Amino acid sequence: MLIPSLDNLVAQLTRLPGIGTRTAQRLAFHILSVPAEEALALAHALEDVKERVRFCRDCGNLTEEELCSVCTDPRRDRTLVCVVEQPVDVVSLERTHEYRGLYHVLGGSLSPLDGVEPGDLRIGQLLHRVEQGGIEEVVLATNPNMTGEATAAYLADRLRDRVRVTRLASGLPVGGDLEYADEVTLGRALSGRRPA
Amino acid sequence: MLIPSLDNLVAQLTRLPGIGTRTAQRLAFHILSVPAEEALALAHALEDVKERVRFCRDCGNLTEEELCSVCTDPRRDRTLVCVVEQPVDVVSLERTHEYRGLYHVLGGSLSPLDGVEPGDLRIGQLLHRVEQGGIEEVVLATNPNMTGEATAAYLADRLRDRVRVTRLASGLPVGGDLEYADEVTLGRALSGRRPA
Repeated sequence: MLIPSLDNLVAQLTRLPGIGTRTAQRLAFHILSVPAEEALALAHALEDVKERVRFCRDCGNLTEEELCSVCTDPRRDRTLVCVVEQPVDVVSLERTHEYRGLYHVLGGSLSPLDGVEPGDLRIGQLLHRVEQGGIEEVVLATNPNMTGEATAAYLADRLRDRVRVTRLASGLPVGGDLEYADEVTLGRALSGRRPA
Repeated sequence: MLIPSLDNLVAQLTRLPGIGTRTAQRLAFHILSVPAEEALALAHALEDVKERVRFCRDCGNLTEEELCSVCTDPRRDRTLVCVVEQPVDVVSLERTHEYRGLYHVLGGSLSPLDGVEPGDLRIGQLLHRVEQGGIEEVVLATNPNMTGEATAAYLADRLRDRVRVTRLASGLPVGGDLEYADEVTLGRALSGRRPA
């Protein structure tokens, strides 16, 4: 557009996931149309989040303190630890209001092809937490895809002798149609069938 | 999520058009996962654009200088002025590579119900440009909706005696199907039919 700062804003917005050139342009024009305070509030929010948010010392979840809000919550069940790949997975699980234990955020999944080895994830810290004692069950909640399953299998091997290890159930999504389920999911739903 | 800076970033992102809570959350987690420089580059781009971009003195288009890149381009036809509602419309028209004249950006459309009167738009400046002489044709390219049509009718009344006034053609969008055209568009296409 021959307006350097506007072209640059569009370029920066395009780096965000799911934001194409057209959307970036629409957002940039919106930014131009709002009061400066609103645009600066967003700019400062971006700076703030990078400055303040860090990983919980114990579980790797996001926090602004040394320990996250789950680890410091006295009402949580400390005998139960749920292992997830990313902090965003904690948000998803918390939204269910079904889980009252602690978390352990690995920071990714094992993927030798992408160069992600056990040493690149918070696996040593997880083994250390289990060795400390007090944990009775580890729920493996890595993603039900190739790298997530591989990570779950690896962790199950390492933990099985020391603690009860469980995996999130696979099966048909609630509200879904049998007709549209892929064959792997449907196979899992079959093999994992329960008494009605 | 009980992480104030992250919750605030999500709230700020949600104020953008077309960004719901889920998308804002996904963007916020993406921001957390990228190097600080990338997040700060976006923050600075936001600040920069608000600080540097202003309206062209002559036409109301966006620019970082006193005059925009169209007004200062010696190759543009200065006898032709295209009137649009918003700066983003200039981008759309430039993308066609069909137009070689100048622009006049009104900054909106007349909408008495929303309190937008002629004095709130750059209409006085447009009349002044025409009075200065040298302009032979004014192309009204306001949106083909209620307020855009009302604005075009108002401007046509004010300009008709001084200069040739034209309006963008209405009709079937290229690549569209007759079957899916709304009746108003199809009616316009009929009444505006041309020799084949």
